[in-house]
Amino acid sequence: MNTAELWQRYQDWLYYDEKLGFYLDVSRMSFDDAFVETMKPKFDKAFKDITAIEAGAIANPDEERMVGHYWLRDPDLAPTDELKQDIIDTKQSIIDFAHKIHSGEIAPPSGGKFTQILSIGIGGSALGPQFVAQALATLDAPLKIYFIDNSDPEGIDQILATISDRLDTTLVSVISKSGGTPETRNGMLEVKQVYEDRNLNFADHAFAITGKGSQLENQAKSEGWLATFPMRDWVGGRTSELSAVGLVAAALQGINIQAMLDGAKAMDALTRKPDLKNNPAALLALSWYFAGNGKGEKDMVILPYKDSLLLFSRYLQQLIMESLGKEKDLDGNIVNQGIAVYGNKGSTDQHAYVQQLREGVNNFFLTFIEVLKDRNAPSVEIEPGITSGDYLIGFLLGTRQALYEKQRDSITITIPDVNETTVGALIALYERAVSLYASLININAYHQPGVEAGKKAAASILSLQERVVEVLQKSQRALSLSELATQAEAPEQIETVYKIVRHLYANQRGIILTGNLGQPSSLKIAWQSH
Amino acid sequence: MNTAELWQRYQDWLYYDEKLGFYLDVSRMSFDDAFVETMKPKFDKAFKDITAIEAGAIANPDEERMVGHYWLRDPDLAPTDELKQDIIDTKQSIIDFAHKIHSGEIAPPSGGKFTQILSIGIGGSALGPQFVAQALATLDAPLKIYFIDNSDPEGIDQILATISDRLDTTLVSVISKSGGTPETRNGMLEVKQVYEDRNLNFADHAFAITGKGSQLENQAKSEGWLATFPMRDWVGGRTSELSAVGLVAAALQGINIQAMLDGAKAMDALTRKPDLKNNPAALLALSWYFAGNGKGEKDMVILPYKDSLLLFSRYLQQLIMESLGKEKDLDGNIVNQGIAVYGNKGSTDQHAYVQQLREGVNNFFLTFIEVLKDRNAPSVEIEPGITSGDYLIGFLLGTRQALYEKQRDSITITIPDVNETTVGALIALYERAVSLYASLININAYHQPGVEAGKKAAASILSLQERVVEVLQKSQRALSLSELATQAEAPEQIETVYKIVRHLYANQRGIILTGNLGQPSSLKIAWQSH
Repeated sequence: MNTAELWQRYQDWLYYDEKLGFYLDVSRMSFDDAFVETMKPKFDKAFKDITAIEAGAIANPDEERMVGHYWLRDPDLAPTDELKQDIIDTKQSIIDFAHKIHSGEIAPPSGGKFTQILSIGIGGSALGPQFVAQALATLDAPLKIYFIDNSDPEGIDQILATISDRLDTTLVSVISKSGGTPETRNGMLEVKQVYEDRNLNFADHAFAITGKGSQLENQAKSEGWLATFPMRDWVGGRTSELSAVGLVAAALQGINIQAMLDGAKAMDALTRKPDLKNNPAALLALSWYFAGNGKGEKDMVILPYKDSLLLFSRYLQQLIMESLGKEKDLDGNIVNQGIAVYGNKGSTDQHAYVQQLREGVNNFFLTFIEVLKDRNAPSVEIEPGITSGDYLIGFLLGTRQALYEKQRDSITITIPDVNETTVGALIALYERAVSLYASLININAYHQPGVEAGKKAAASILSLQERVVEVLQKSQRALSLSELATQAEAPEQIETVYKIVRHLYANQRGIILTGNLGQPSSLKIAWQSH
Repeated sequence: MNTAELWQRYQDWLYYDEKLGFYLDVSRMSFDDAFVETMKPKFDKAFKDITAIEAGAIANPDEERMVGHYWLRDPDLAPTDELKQDIIDTKQSIIDFAHKIHSGEIAPPSGGKFTQILSIGIGGSALGPQFVAQALATLDAPLKIYFIDNSDPEGIDQILATISDRLDTTLVSVISKSGGTPETRNGMLEVKQVYEDRNLNFADHAFAITGKGSQLENQAKSEGWLATFPMRDWVGGRTSELSAVGLVAAALQGINIQAMLDGAKAMDALTRKPDLKNNPAALLALSWYFAGNGKGEKDMVILPYKDSLLLFSRYLQQLIMESLGKEKDLDGNIVNQGIAVYGNKGSTDQHAYVQQLREGVNNFFLTFIEVLKDRNAPSVEIEPGITSGDYLIGFLLGTRQALYEKQRDSITITIPDVNETTVGALIALYERAVSLYASLININAYHQPGVEAGKKAAASILSLQERVVEVLQKSQRALSLSELATQAEAPEQIETVYKIVRHLYANQRGIILTGNLGQPSSLKIAWQSH
């Protein structure tokens, strides 16, 4: 394609919304008109599907659930008055709670005001709040936020040590739909213990965001925590940033949650149009389908050229991979779908792996995110007439061009600034692109059956650990691994027994080992008291 | 394979070094003995190649350079006495500098001691120091470190605002081999400006890590900066963590750099053995080759189950993708090699994308990193006999098992603890696996020709910006985009002209626009003074 043709293609495909100041450019995805024609019937179906979802269809058949995250920013769409009122009331309760915390009406028992939040949650209960905090929280935010998003003891210790001198003015947020997510429960129990060790009443510092009637809700109510906010079964974890999960943390940090909701609502409206070329979510879904042949054959590399958007790719990893990475389609055929997502930020990543993107294995397509506004104040000139921000944009454009020359496809999203409205709009854009793409490939984007297997396996390993310890405590002599596995009634799981023993031994949990750790069959294992 | 066979395979392939307490398990990579046999001749060559590299061969033929990062931790290996002495002297000068900073012998002009480091660098001059700081720096480190690793004005503002009240006790590290890396130079100029605005003498706070005779070295010397440390042309950016680039930052943070070097030296020694089955770097390279058919057909997902190792995958993205992502092999054939790398940490990522890994597109292999020690103090019990750390290991083992059931391959690395020795060893392990794998696929792992294209394109865009502004300033009337591009002598680059104009306009840089930004042909562009 010569440059005049390419310029024409750019203009033909450029999507622009003046109100949001939002641009989407798919001209560097190398599809042709014939491909677009073949996709139109699929999109007709996808537009109908998303209309049905918004009207309250059971879009998640496995779990017999409605999929309602689109209602959160436009409660008028909710299929019943009850749901509508629930959304409105929840938002108001969040605003009221944040107001009371900021004003000191709800205050730490020691006096003063709460100064930070310790947010305990994982997956959808962490990634959205982390992304939004980095993108939108200011240095003078009324509360600073910290996260425990894992069951790593050292990681928990590190966070607790960081906030240790302000524990009494720390508000602890515990986020789990069931209350049974082990990482979250472990984090909560560890933190609670530290409060108790300091003679601080945990309940006076804690609030919960959880499902109705959950174990966590019961605990919060019976112990008299400061508040509880709802997680609804019609909102999945990975689309919960604009529910209480994301909004409470944002409001506490002084982020304008109404502007986030409005940005998302505006993008929802733009992407509701059943017209492929004039619907940016559809243009994304079209591009994804083209890149990976509808089978995820290419990875999606996300490169925002803005430090504050660093965590967007981690947020999208969950949204996209957990939604699309499915074994079966809706008809039960084995399809092994998905799209792998990675990326950090530009131009930083140009110095990490653009070498491979330009010259190496062509197994990806890139999404550039360009932010037009450089900073709040005027810039110093690095060279006459040239600023750091000019360089940043120059690197983006230069890399896009260098990739194009090597037939590497890319999408470019342009936003005026990183603010509440554009972040809300980006979240909505990708949520809707996922919904549309899931229709194109005929999968259920709203469940996650594969996550259970790992959890169940982990539970069975912990139960095996209990049996291993019991056998060792009762044994009158040191045992070989195979004796230990047999006596623990798990001869088939001897490797797991070995690993359990190795881990307990490394943490001085009562195990005595002799033999060579690298030769499992040489080991003799005993309990300390023998 | 039944469980007895699998347990036998596990034991047969388990690599263990008692001194490092290091384990590598490749039993869940589904290669068979026949595959291993076919690889042996390739490995014989790879072992010879790495021996030649260590002896000072020109392993980077394009740039006619030796590849000397292995000498850094064992100077006796350096091919000349001069190089050996240089490595020893540099290390000593780093230790001396850190000592003087810690003792206050080198102090800020305002008195007291330096309290933090602002490190300005990108790519290899940022990723290693960032990874090591997160893995090893303690909360009571003598200096805390901050990074500027991009040309994003807002990102720079954010970091500067964070350290604003301690600017006078901030030590600024500027890291660039040539001194010409634009992101680093831009960051340095912006920071310098802020020091001058505060009437602080930048030179009294700054030191450089740079190449001999570079622009940056000249500046540091002529302005009287606190110190300069060398970057040698036989150490590439992505293997520079154990050179001055990584060691200065580490030493200043109170990290034991000798232990890092010793850990790397120990791993070098283990991986020097020309025996596939008893060489962990070779076992990694074998596994990578098997997974991706020697062509990078599978992505490498890195999941350390430890918060402090979160940045290891970003570090490896550069090391692996920039080293292996090459268009041509050493004979000049087009091969488009590479391996895509991504990952964050477990069990957190289980709640993000293990759904796709288990059920979705099978385009990856996983590397688990297990850390045996949970924390420094004893753990509270979450349930009788069960700790948060037991859960973490349980999640790792459970996920590994759940993936295995679905024929998803994985490697497991086990280390006793995250400390200087094991971090040095991990760095060395992957550096050597990359060297070996590069030999297997016959590519130059030590250059990065593809990075230049994007840089050149960016430079031409900035020069076009200057012409665009000049044309507008001289023009007596508003111009259409096509007039502007023609007058700037870049009619072929009209799209770039449009983007330049859009960016200048968004930052109130003198542009007046009329028309619809979404319809480039409708735009009229003028300079403010007209």
